Amino acid sequence: MKAAVLEGIKDIKIKDLPIPEISDDEVLIQIKAVGLCGSDLHYYNEGKLNRRIVTKPLILGHESSGIVKRIGKNVNHLAEGDKVAIEPGIACGKCDICKAGRYNECKKVVFIAAPPNDGALAEFIKHNSSFVHKIPDNITFEQAALIEPLSVGYYSAKKVKIKPGDNVCILGSGPIGLSCLEMAKSFGAAKIFISDISDYRLAIAKKHNAYRTINVLKQNLKEVIDAETNNAGVDIVIESSGAESSIKQSLEICCNCGRVAWLGMGKNEILIPYIEAIYKDLTIEGIFRYANTYVPIIRMIEMSKIDFTGFVTHRFKLDDIVKAIDIASNPDIDKMKIIIYM
Amino acid sequence: MKAAVLEGIKDIKIKDLPIPEISDDEVLIQIKAVGLCGSDLHYYNEGKLNRRIVTKPLILGHESSGIVKRIGKNVNHLAEGDKVAIEPGIACGKCDICKAGRYNECKKVVFIAAPPNDGALAEFIKHNSSFVHKIPDNITFEQAALIEPLSVGYYSAKKVKIKPGDNVCILGSGPIGLSCLEMAKSFGAAKIFISDISDYRLAIAKKHNAYRTINVLKQNLKEVIDAETNNAGVDIVIESSGAESSIKQSLEICCNCGRVAWLGMGKNEILIPYIEAIYKDLTIEGIFRYANTYVPIIRMIEMSKIDFTGFVTHRFKLDDIVKAIDIASNPDIDKMKIIIYM
Amino acid sequence: MKAAVLEGIKDIKIKDLPIPEISDDEVLIQIKAVGLCGSDLHYYNEGKLNRRIVTKPLILGHESSGIVKRIGKNVNHLAEGDKVAIEPGIACGKCDICKAGRYNECKKVVFIAAPPNDGALAEFIKHNSSFVHKIPDNITFEQAALIEPLSVGYYSAKKVKIKPGDNVCILGSGPIGLSCLEMAKSFGAAKIFISDISDYRLAIAKKHNAYRTINVLKQNLKEVIDAETNNAGVDIVIESSGAESSIKQSLEICCNCGRVAWLGMGKNEILIPYIEAIYKDLTIEGIFRYANTYVPIIRMIEMSKIDFTGFVTHRFKLDDIVKAIDIASNPDIDKMKIIIYM
Amino acid sequence: MKAAVLEGIKDIKIKDLPIPEISDDEVLIQIKAVGLCGSDLHYYNEGKLNRRIVTKPLILGHESSGIVKRIGKNVNHLAEGDKVAIEPGIACGKCDICKAGRYNECKKVVFIAAPPNDGALAEFIKHNSSFVHKIPDNITFEQAALIEPLSVGYYSAKKVKIKPGDNVCILGSGPIGLSCLEMAKSFGAAKIFISDISDYRLAIAKKHNAYRTINVLKQNLKEVIDAETNNAGVDIVIESSGAESSIKQSLEICCNCGRVAWLGMGKNEILIPYIEAIYKDLTIEGIFRYANTYVPIIRMIEMSKIDFTGFVTHRFKLDDIVKAIDIASNPDIDKMKIIIYM
Repeated sequence: MKAAVLEGIKDIKIKDLPIPEISDDEVLIQIKAVGLCGSDLHYYNEGKLNRRIVTKPLILGHESSGIVKRIGKNVNHLAEGDKVAIEPGIACGKCDICKAGRYNECKKVVFIAAPPNDGALAEFIKHNSSFVHKIPDNITFEQAALIEPLSVGYYSAKKVKIKPGDNVCILGSGPIGLSCLEMAKSFGAAKIFISDISDYRLAIAKKHNAYRTINVLKQNLKEVIDAETNNAGVDIVIESSGAESSIKQSLEICCNCGRVAWLGMGKNEILIPYIEAIYKDLTIEGIFRYANTYVPIIRMIEMSKIDFTGFVTHRFKLDDIVKAIDIASNPDIDKMKIIIYM
Repeated sequence: MKAAVLEGIKDIKIKDLPIPEISDDEVLIQIKAVGLCGSDLHYYNEGKLNRRIVTKPLILGHESSGIVKRIGKNVNHLAEGDKVAIEPGIACGKCDICKAGRYNECKKVVFIAAPPNDGALAEFIKHNSSFVHKIPDNITFEQAALIEPLSVGYYSAKKVKIKPGDNVCILGSGPIGLSCLEMAKSFGAAKIFISDISDYRLAIAKKHNAYRTINVLKQNLKEVIDAETNNAGVDIVIESSGAESSIKQSLEICCNCGRVAWLGMGKNEILIPYIEAIYKDLTIEGIFRYANTYVPIIRMIEMSKIDFTGFVTHRFKLDDIVKAIDIASNPDIDKMKIIIYM
Repeated sequence: MKAAVLEGIKDIKIKDLPIPEISDDEVLIQIKAVGLCGSDLHYYNEGKLNRRIVTKPLILGHESSGIVKRIGKNVNHLAEGDKVAIEPGIACGKCDICKAGRYNECKKVVFIAAPPNDGALAEFIKHNSSFVHKIPDNITFEQAALIEPLSVGYYSAKKVKIKPGDNVCILGSGPIGLSCLEMAKSFGAAKIFISDISDYRLAIAKKHNAYRTINVLKQNLKEVIDAETNNAGVDIVIESSGAESSIKQSLEICCNCGRVAWLGMGKNEILIPYIEAIYKDLTIEGIFRYANTYVPIIRMIEMSKIDFTGFVTHRFKLDDIVKAIDIASNPDIDKMKIIIYM
Repeated sequence: MKAAVLEGIKDIKIKDLPIPEISDDEVLIQIKAVGLCGSDLHYYNEGKLNRRIVTKPLILGHESSGIVKRIGKNVNHLAEGDKVAIEPGIACGKCDICKAGRYNECKKVVFIAAPPNDGALAEFIKHNSSFVHKIPDNITFEQAALIEPLSVGYYSAKKVKIKPGDNVCILGSGPIGLSCLEMAKSFGAAKIFISDISDYRLAIAKKHNAYRTINVLKQNLKEVIDAETNNAGVDIVIESSGAESSIKQSLEICCNCGRVAWLGMGKNEILIPYIEAIYKDLTIEGIFRYANTYVPIIRMIEMSKIDFTGFVTHRFKLDDIVKAIDIASNPDIDKMKIIIYM
């Protein structure tokens, strides 16, 4: 089979590899669509991401979907030919954290496309069947690949407890910010503010019915929110950018008794306006990946509850993976999500 | 001022009464729209509702909106001329239950149009300003009056914890069932089933994008749900009808770990399939009125998040109150909510 | 190895069976102590319990502890010689309900001593290592066997959200009621009322610092609670008896906004005072077994947070199993939990 | 009446003032015991605390109890002669935040002994009856005054969701840390670690059955916790010291999926190990005062659920207020809470 193999920094090659053998609990999946994520770019451009270092050839790509081609003998809920979305983190299912329903924090998780585990930029992958989700016919492979970034939005909105009528501000309007925006809508948010430094990305957010889009290079976010909320601040803040100034601001624009989600990968240490958390009796939720999101999101997409307008801006074939990654890595090129089709 | 006064069973007259005097914490409101509720009909037709008995002339109507005409000297958040929605239950704000945020259960609550408290079918009423909510210009008086029944739906959906992707079944498709349907959508429900014995009402629910409408005189609800959910049952059941068979069924159609809201006023004692609650580890939420719903619902309507299609089927002037109540009381006439305009 | 095998109704024999072979995910455990549960008695005396029927020879006993004798090659968290408590329900770890942390409702659960699965009244059993919990030296085997009934109490108290200062009433003072009493204390309950028809059992509850013990054959429970709570009712009710009158009363003695747990195995259908659930805005929690309880309870026992006074009233050797079960089945004999020592 | 009036920095005098007049919603209370709080010392020594500045003569003291001497005509739940605990923050009961049950964040709150509102270091005070709580005879006036600092502990433990079996670390062992320790026990904590820089204070914590007391001048807190928790960290961290190093450490010693309460008044801006919040999927709760705590704590004390050992180390008469405040302000004197008796 063909696979895109990262063999060194900025060195990715299409290679011919054997089709994986599956164990009794696994399925073999023919990959159809794969989204590129910021983590893929870090491994490609720098050979590492935080604590994770690429030390051997690695197949990238963890936002993926495809068709089941073979099933292990213990697998009952899937059949050959099923269209599926692939949840990339395979948790152990046995430790106390898994049993408590928070498997995103399983210490034995095997997350694909995080070294040393190969990912989905290949014609076929094997995957533990517990983390392979059947999708109905009316969901496309591209939409199914996007369930992964949408999962971050769903998990954030759920953990930070958005409820109908809440005013919400999302900091960052990239693919994850846009996922948060769609999910804030699904959780019933009233006014949704969203900020970024890219007018291109804010214009896409606007098409998703963001109430106000704020380019923080041009406008003072806090002033906009104060003006629109009678100086109360928003009920919910979701910080998806990871920018230091934005993390700091997340506490300042939140109302008394409000709730803040931090999901942007930021610097190890950040100076925060601590006293805001105290005086306002805030709740701050750190967000790491997601758990229990694929089933509800599949149902939501099936019922046309998610608006995919402008989510994907570039599409490539696997053979053009280098071109795709170069565009993805270029800050001067306007883009949202890039999808690789097999 | 003119007011519709219930002077005995089925004896309502338009009378001329003095405009109420307000105290320092109150406002005087010129009423614009009032919805008729089932409780109004009970007082009109039977002179009582459960524990409440009409013992003196009573002004009915508790789903209302209007314009502030005068404000007490302690009132800061309202001004003369404000358009307002009136929350009918005035809780004390001082007892432990109020302080805990569950003021729908305040033992000192004064609920208008429940004897002996006069209601809103009058040109003017006075009301405690804490329970008078300013509405923006883009909300109509009719919509503002409907915030009251919508509140039951919001409170139910919130207490029973609907989350995006949940499959929901609503039993009963009257005005409260329809409110629950709109709120289930706002809380992100995926497939929404709704049942009734009236095709007329189910047709309105269908216009609100109910996934399946089930006339229980013609179809077996449990069979429909089993077929559509792979025999799992729905995640959430909201019982709004009060019918004994429906209350019983609420536990049977709910999935393992599911949640059920009971809000329909039913018989004092009901035979339930108890063992379903145990084996399925269910959560059942009794629902009494609502608390903390007006602010989020006003925001939702302001942002066009509520679909009012078919909510109101009949509109009358105050002078036609008897005709309006007679239609409201006639089970042979197809209808949803009836609004009295002043 | 020796094992107590149920070969027909009221026909249990000590037999010599081969020691079980373990798979890679299992451990072999030398059993040290086993508690007798009501379900064991149903299988012994009637050959069935609700939907479960004994159709082949069965080893009873699911409240057990012992010493690890052999470990499968995938097992990391246990070693030979470890003292362990055995959680009897082996959930699949792979389905949506397991992944959501509610594995007590897993449809593939294998629960030992529920036909056709053998239990722990044997010298050795094999068990999936995920449900075998290491205990520290300061916990006895008898205490470790009691973690199973304590789990029902912990799960109930957690699901029904007892918080410090709550007044609690527990209906039924058998081993499960006593477990609920200890857990209500651990969750911080202020006044704990407990009812039963046995003065013997109530006397044991009194030693656990129940505030009031009420023999419902002699006293009117509702009157006692009304008198002690200024007619408000208790914040929390835990119904552990399964008696119809008691299930009914669970709603009547609960305060406005209160919470009720139903865990007693009662009749399939029960007539309840439905309107109480509505008017009081109650929350009712059905309870089926438990999940995620062993780890916290082991910590609690290790820190001497559980009072075991009077929990175990009879102790037998395996050879005396028939005598033990006969005593357990005899309603005229005063008793709490009976433990079989190997 | 006599009252201790702060007339300037470090200038407090016993003066003779008129007994306050009460309004219809108020009661007049003869003060019996008042605890000194850190905020009192700030006003005394510096004339301000954060945003609050003393600009006119001020009576200090907000941890107080006494006897009702006169009641306003709207007051039903109290009678002359009642022993009472005084909740110092009088929330409006009318705004959206009050109605939602989070009155600690009411923007109209009148908090006694915070300028410009007089406090309780006087023979009599008037107070809104909603925030005056009757106590039973078996609670002393000193205990009743301590309900105020205990409230911070209760609210923190509740908001950060301590549950039985959780391992908890409390940073800071002053009166608030000790309150948190007692409340962590009441919420069922298993192992409780507590840190401070005072061996004197840690010795008192030890008497309250802290599992480990850590003097951070002598021991590395993280190393102790890692060693005792198999490198997992504690489930719950409560930061009560406000020290920058301690706030930082609060995130480092918490386990995956853990919860952290920040209540210590710290610097406006703090450098935190942000990435810990992300990678561990933490929840951080900012804590500002408390709400809905007096009723449960009164019940807990009534049932002897709170251990007051060593809580009060110094007691003075009102005439010795200057001496009392000087001792309270002297870091070289070992102490816990200081109580002024009238």
